[in-house]
Amino acid sequence: MASLNKAPYKGTRDFFPADMRFRNFVFEKMAAVSETFCYEPYDGPLLEEIELYYAKSGEELINDQIYSFVDRGDRKVAIRPEMTPTVARMVAQIHREVAKPLRWYAIPNLMRYEKPQKGRLREFWQYNADVFGAGEYGDVEIIQLAVQILRSFGANASQFAIHINDRRLVDFIFTGLIGLDAEANKKLYKLVDRKNKMDPAKFAAEVRTITKDESQANAFEAYVALATIADVERFMETKNSEAAAPLVKLFKTLGELGLSEYVLFDPSIVRGLDYYTGVVFEIFDKHPENNRAIAGGGAYANLLQIFNEQPLGGVGFGMGEVPLKEFLKAHNLIQDFSKAQVDVMVTYSLASSEGDAFILADRLRAQNLKVEMIFGETKAKKAFTQAERKNTTAVVLLGEESQVKNLSTRESRPLDLGNINALVEFVKGKN
Amino acid sequence: MASLNKAPYKGTRDFFPADMRFRNFVFEKMAAVSETFCYEPYDGPLLEEIELYYAKSGEELINDQIYSFVDRGDRKVAIRPEMTPTVARMVAQIHREVAKPLRWYAIPNLMRYEKPQKGRLREFWQYNADVFGAGEYGDVEIIQLAVQILRSFGANASQFAIHINDRRLVDFIFTGLIGLDAEANKKLYKLVDRKNKMDPAKFAAEVRTITKDESQANAFEAYVALATIADVERFMETKNSEAAAPLVKLFKTLGELGLSEYVLFDPSIVRGLDYYTGVVFEIFDKHPENNRAIAGGGAYANLLQIFNEQPLGGVGFGMGEVPLKEFLKAHNLIQDFSKAQVDVMVTYSLASSEGDAFILADRLRAQNLKVEMIFGETKAKKAFTQAERKNTTAVVLLGEESQVKNLSTRESRPLDLGNINALVEFVKGKN
Repeated sequence: MASLNKAPYKGTRDFFPADMRFRNFVFEKMAAVSETFCYEPYDGPLLEEIELYYAKSGEELINDQIYSFVDRGDRKVAIRPEMTPTVARMVAQIHREVAKPLRWYAIPNLMRYEKPQKGRLREFWQYNADVFGAGEYGDVEIIQLAVQILRSFGANASQFAIHINDRRLVDFIFTGLIGLDAEANKKLYKLVDRKNKMDPAKFAAEVRTITKDESQANAFEAYVALATIADVERFMETKNSEAAAPLVKLFKTLGELGLSEYVLFDPSIVRGLDYYTGVVFEIFDKHPENNRAIAGGGAYANLLQIFNEQPLGGVGFGMGEVPLKEFLKAHNLIQDFSKAQVDVMVTYSLASSEGDAFILADRLRAQNLKVEMIFGETKAKKAFTQAERKNTTAVVLLGEESQVKNLSTRESRPLDLGNINALVEFVKGKN
Repeated sequence: MASLNKAPYKGTRDFFPADMRFRNFVFEKMAAVSETFCYEPYDGPLLEEIELYYAKSGEELINDQIYSFVDRGDRKVAIRPEMTPTVARMVAQIHREVAKPLRWYAIPNLMRYEKPQKGRLREFWQYNADVFGAGEYGDVEIIQLAVQILRSFGANASQFAIHINDRRLVDFIFTGLIGLDAEANKKLYKLVDRKNKMDPAKFAAEVRTITKDESQANAFEAYVALATIADVERFMETKNSEAAAPLVKLFKTLGELGLSEYVLFDPSIVRGLDYYTGVVFEIFDKHPENNRAIAGGGAYANLLQIFNEQPLGGVGFGMGEVPLKEFLKAHNLIQDFSKAQVDVMVTYSLASSEGDAFILADRLRAQNLKVEMIFGETKAKKAFTQAERKNTTAVVLLGEESQVKNLSTRESRPLDLGNINALVEFVKGKN
C-alpha cells in the first residue's frame, strides 16, 4: 500500500499543541476584551445555502474564492468565506423582538480558495464584532474596541495606526463636487482602493482615464492630497461642512478619549464593499517590513436589505488571525508557547506506589492543579529530565523516601500524603 | 426580489448569544478538566483529502455520511466527519521526535450527512481526548478523565455509567472458545453491537443464523449472560485467565481510585470500528427517558498503520456536545444562560455628560469590569429597565446629580469620578 500524505490540505494548517496554545491565547484575549465591552458571543453554521452569498457577497468572493458544492439533497451550499451574510441572516430572525443596540462578536473559521502566501491562507479564523442599531455612537465604540484588542497584546501607537475615512464624505466629493457619473464613481472607488499599491505616475494616468477632463482630475487630486482631519475640515468648510461633520466629530470624540495617537485620516480608505455607507477604517501595521492591513470595517445603513426587512444599521470590523500573527511577530509580541504548563509531575520509583500516585494525582487535580502522571516505575533522574521538557513547577517522587521538589525555588521536602493543603501551598510557592 | 431563507442550512444551528454562552461554558469545562490532566490542545483543518478517510474511516461514514467534493484544483476533499484520521496524520508527522506519552485533546466541529433527529445533527462539535504511547496505563487515565469531565458539570454516578469491555476478551471467546471463523466473528461483532436495540427473541434467532450449531450458540449466550467483572473472572478462570487479566486489573484499579460506582462490565459493548484492540467503553445516560450513549472510546494498537509508520498504540474517547446537552437537560444540570452578565451599565441623562460616560466606561474596563454604555441621553427609569434585561450588577447614572446604584444590594451613593477604586469596590459589593 502506498503511504498516505502526512501534510495538511493545501492552504490549511495543523495546530500542534504549541500552535494551539498560541491560538487559544489570541482568541481568549479577543473574547475577554469583547466581554469588557459587553459584546456577546455568537456563531453560525459552517455551511450556508449559496443563495445567501449571491445576495450579499462581492463577485470576486463568489466567482473565484468560494468553496461551493451540491449536497446529497441537491442543495447548493458553500463553506462560509465571510461572516457578515450569516450574521445578517441571524439578526433578521430576531431584530423585531430584541432591544437595540445588539453588540455581538464571533471568531469563526472561514475558507477561501486563495493562492497561499504570507498572511493569506485558505482556512483562517476571523474575529468579527458588530454593534447593530446604535446610530453614530457605534463608530466610536467599535474603534475603541479595536484599539483595546491590539493593546491587550501589548501593542502601542508606534506599532499600528487606524486609517479612517467616511463614505458620506467621499460620495459628496466624487459626485457632488467633482461631478462624476455613477459609472465613473464606481471606477474611481476601485482605483482609490488600490492607490497605496500603485506607482504614483501610473495612478495619475489611470485617474485621467476615468475623469472627463483635467479640472475633474485636479479636483480629485486635491482630495487625495488631504492628509489630516484638519485638512478635511478646511477643505470642506466652504463646500459642504455637513458632509464632513460626522468624521470631524468622530476625530474629536476619539481625541477626548485619548485615542488621537492611534488614528489618522486617510483618503485612500474607501472599502470596496457596496454595503458600507458611513465611517470606514483599516488598521495598518507600521512595521516597515510588514506594512499591511490587519483589520478593517465600517458603518452600514442596512444590514437586512436582502431579507426585505426594515432597515437596520450597524458598525463592525473584522480582524484575521493570520495577519494579526504576522503583526505580533513583527513587533516581537509573541511569548513562548512551545512548552506546556505542568503544576505537578507525579512519579513513583516503586511499583507498590502506583496506586498512591494515581490517588495523589486525583486529589491535586481536585485542587485545580495541572497534574501529569509519569506512568511506570521511574528513577528520580529520569523524572527530572521529563519535567524539564515542560514548564514544570514541582515534581513529586513517590517511593521509599517520598518527597516533593519545587523546581523554581529548588527546595525539596519530605512528602506528607496526609496534608494535601500543605503540599498545594508548597507547590504554589506560598510556604 | 424574493426574500431569502432566514433559517440555517438543514441539520445545522445558529448559536445566538444565549446558545453560545452555553456552548462556551461546556467547552471551557472540557478544556479546563483536560488541562488538569495535562492533556494538550490541538486542532486540524476543516478539510482533508478524501484518501485519508478511505484509508481510515468505516464504510458507512464514507459512503453515506461524508460531505465530499472536488476542489478547483481537482483535489477530492471532504469536510471532516471525525477527528481520528486527522490526529493520526498529525502524530505521524512528529511521533519519532517527541517523548511519549502524548496527551492531546480537541473540540472540533464535524459534519455528517445525517437525517437530523434528537441528539443527532449534521454539524456538531465533538470533544476528543487521546493518550498515545502509554501502554496499559492509558485505560485508567482516560476513564478517570471522562468521569471528571461529567462530574465537572455536576453529574454523578446515579446519572451516568461507563460500560466497559475488552476486545482481547471478546476475541478469545468468539474465536478461541466458541470457535467462530473470521467471517462469522465479524458478523457476530456487528450483531452484538445492536443487541440493546433488539428484541431478545429476534436476537437469539439471529445468533443462530451466524453460529454453526446449538453448542456454539449456547457458548455465545453464556458470554452475553456475564453481568459483572466477577462473573467474567469466574467464567474465564478455567478457560484463559490471561485474556481476562487486563480487564480484571482495570476494574481493580478503578476501584482503588474510588470509581467503582461509575463503571460496569457490559458484554454488548464491542465498538464496531476495526482499529480498537483492547479495552472499549461507552458512557450511557441512566435517565429512563434518555437512555443513550453520550461518549465512547477505547484502546488501539496501531494508530499509524495507514502511514506505514512503526506501531503506536493509544487510548482515547469522543464525546459529542449534542448528546451531552441532552444528558445535561435530562438531569437538569443546565443553568440559565439567557441573560448576559453586565458589571456596570453606564448611562447619562445630559448630553454634556457623554464624554465623561465614554471615559468612565474605558477606565472601568481597564479594571477588567464588563461595562455596557447606554448611548444617548437616558432617563434613570429607562436605564433601570435596560439593566433588568441583563444580569446587571450596578448602574452608573451621570447627570446633574451623578450616582451609582448596586442592583444586588439596592444601595445607591453619589458618584466620585476622582476615586475609581472606590467605585470598583462598590460595584463588586466589597464596601
